[in-house]
Amino acid sequence: MEAGRKAFPRPLDLKGGRVELGHGAGGRAMTQLIEELFERRFANPLLAQRHDAASFPVAAGRMAVSTDGFVISPLFFPGGDIGSLAVHGTINDVAMAGARPLYLTAGLILEEGFPLADLARIIASMADAAAAAGVSIVAGDTKVVERGKGDGIFITTTGIGVVPDGIEIGADRARPGDAVLLSGTLGDHGVAVLSEREGLRFETELRSDSAPLHTLVAEMLAAAPEIRVLRDATRGGFAAVLNEIARESGVGITVREAAIPVGAAVRGACELLGLDPLYVANEGKLVAFCPEPAAARLLAVMRAHPQGGDAAIVGSCTDDPHRFVQMRTALGGTRIIDWIAGEQLPRIC
Amino acid sequence: MEAGRKAFPRPLDLKGGRVELGHGAGGRAMTQLIEELFERRFANPLLAQRHDAASFPVAAGRMAVSTDGFVISPLFFPGGDIGSLAVHGTINDVAMAGARPLYLTAGLILEEGFPLADLARIIASMADAAAAAGVSIVAGDTKVVERGKGDGIFITTTGIGVVPDGIEIGADRARPGDAVLLSGTLGDHGVAVLSEREGLRFETELRSDSAPLHTLVAEMLAAAPEIRVLRDATRGGFAAVLNEIARESGVGITVREAAIPVGAAVRGACELLGLDPLYVANEGKLVAFCPEPAAARLLAVMRAHPQGGDAAIVGSCTDDPHRFVQMRTALGGTRIIDWIAGEQLPRIC
Repeated sequence: MEAGRKAFPRPLDLKGGRVELGHGAGGRAMTQLIEELFERRFANPLLAQRHDAASFPVAAGRMAVSTDGFVISPLFFPGGDIGSLAVHGTINDVAMAGARPLYLTAGLILEEGFPLADLARIIASMADAAAAAGVSIVAGDTKVVERGKGDGIFITTTGIGVVPDGIEIGADRARPGDAVLLSGTLGDHGVAVLSEREGLRFETELRSDSAPLHTLVAEMLAAAPEIRVLRDATRGGFAAVLNEIARESGVGITVREAAIPVGAAVRGACELLGLDPLYVANEGKLVAFCPEPAAARLLAVMRAHPQGGDAAIVGSCTDDPHRFVQMRTALGGTRIIDWIAGEQLPRIC
Repeated sequence: MEAGRKAFPRPLDLKGGRVELGHGAGGRAMTQLIEELFERRFANPLLAQRHDAASFPVAAGRMAVSTDGFVISPLFFPGGDIGSLAVHGTINDVAMAGARPLYLTAGLILEEGFPLADLARIIASMADAAAAAGVSIVAGDTKVVERGKGDGIFITTTGIGVVPDGIEIGADRARPGDAVLLSGTLGDHGVAVLSEREGLRFETELRSDSAPLHTLVAEMLAAAPEIRVLRDATRGGFAAVLNEIARESGVGITVREAAIPVGAAVRGACELLGLDPLYVANEGKLVAFCPEPAAARLLAVMRAHPQGGDAAIVGSCTDDPHRFVQMRTALGGTRIIDWIAGEQLPRIC
């Protein structure tokens, strides 16, 4: 808080206090919440402008913008919480356009009665995740709804980044013959969240893979600017990503089951829970399509990065007017990988 | 929908259908909602890229970004709905930085069971408001929460715009002697929404003033680039805006009650409801601070614009270490206009 501003009668009670409707009313209570919690944690010069809009200089070029709402339940889970997830998820969406993320905005929808201690923990987690990734949270908004009209906290983050010259990434750019690469094991996020939600305990700890992927993407693009498609495999999992790309690009895709990395603990939990790791959400894994000659070079770069240690070439694109996604199973058969029809795991992000 | 894509088994039931958890799951149901509702209504080349992030070219200069969540209840009210409000509100936040709004993103949080017909009406309203204002909705996200964990629909919009060269607007830039201008009548939005919520009927129709203010701002800045502060008087009303600016700029502010425009119907409703129009939310009114010599010129430009017909010079800044906001009443006295302490009208935007 700037020295020149009037102080508030009492500091915000971040231990025992709760969110009140007044915290969203545009008056003194809201200003106090902004100053004593958000500005302290998110401290950066753009936010300190205290405009409704943050303004910043840009160089001529291409920018990318993406928005994502987070409604995950429970709010805290092994490997992260809704705050770090909201930062990582939007950084990743911007990165999947080939862009370098620079700025985030955050819109909070709080439920009356939500503990301020939980809010403070989530805000600290957002701030830490943003700082670790080198992005600034430059604008925000807080609304409060009555008890029973929300569920603790929902966060909508929007990310803005710059796209380097010469990069052309798009879900419609895959071509027959392209290699399909996956950056690591599937299912970690969804299985960790579901286990926490259901109170399940496994012998091996299950942790969300929630992580920012923008430095991995930057290294991939530097090594292989001919990358055609990048997607993070979030809601709907790897299966949804493959079906989207097949549909947009007008190609078939064949993947090899034996090549798809899945951790032993996740595999065991999925068998117990009746889940298929192909459909389970990830928050730190990406799928890349590139011309076949670049695949080995790209794989080497991915494996050398902390977020790509388990990367693998898992399949290729085919010339298929039906745009089917198929999997060669470990037993030698072939099965269609269809979209998930309904909701497999609600509120997983 | 592109001719080349596979169609869905049945079209979305926009008459009798309801939001299901599957509409937020990342699979086929979500894709259908996006294609058959959002893409059709928001049709523009950037959204049609179908990336998680939209990318667009920018010229070198300054950009402004702002985000705002909308949780208004009821969703439909005289003069607008949550969709048009979400578009206008964020356009206005960007405009208050002196910027020309270009792009919007929209994050929707839907409650399971929400009628698809209401969703379609809201999406159409967003699309119409964006088109009328000349901005494009370029990226979006949809999440669905279980019945009872939300309240129909919440919308978070983020706006991006370009700031013309030479414009410097900020809540900390008001100086003693500056004139304070108000673009029109106070209280219309809040009173209209509250009346609808409470089922009140008045002889004169009360309508929200929800409107985009960016063309008004552009004309104001062209005529008076020396404008120091611009703020839309939303949550917390005119009183909150004045207190924020006094606090940030380190000045006192004195306004004249007789100069502040309030419509007769709003005045009557406020008396009946025990509300003070100074604290009631507006969604189509702005407050401007400028050096006194520019005030008459600025007022003339405002009055010539459809959104500024009732504009008035309502007060001036003073040299006051206490940063008090005061009002000369119609009866000749002076009273302090303090912040609203808690929540006057919850969920007004």
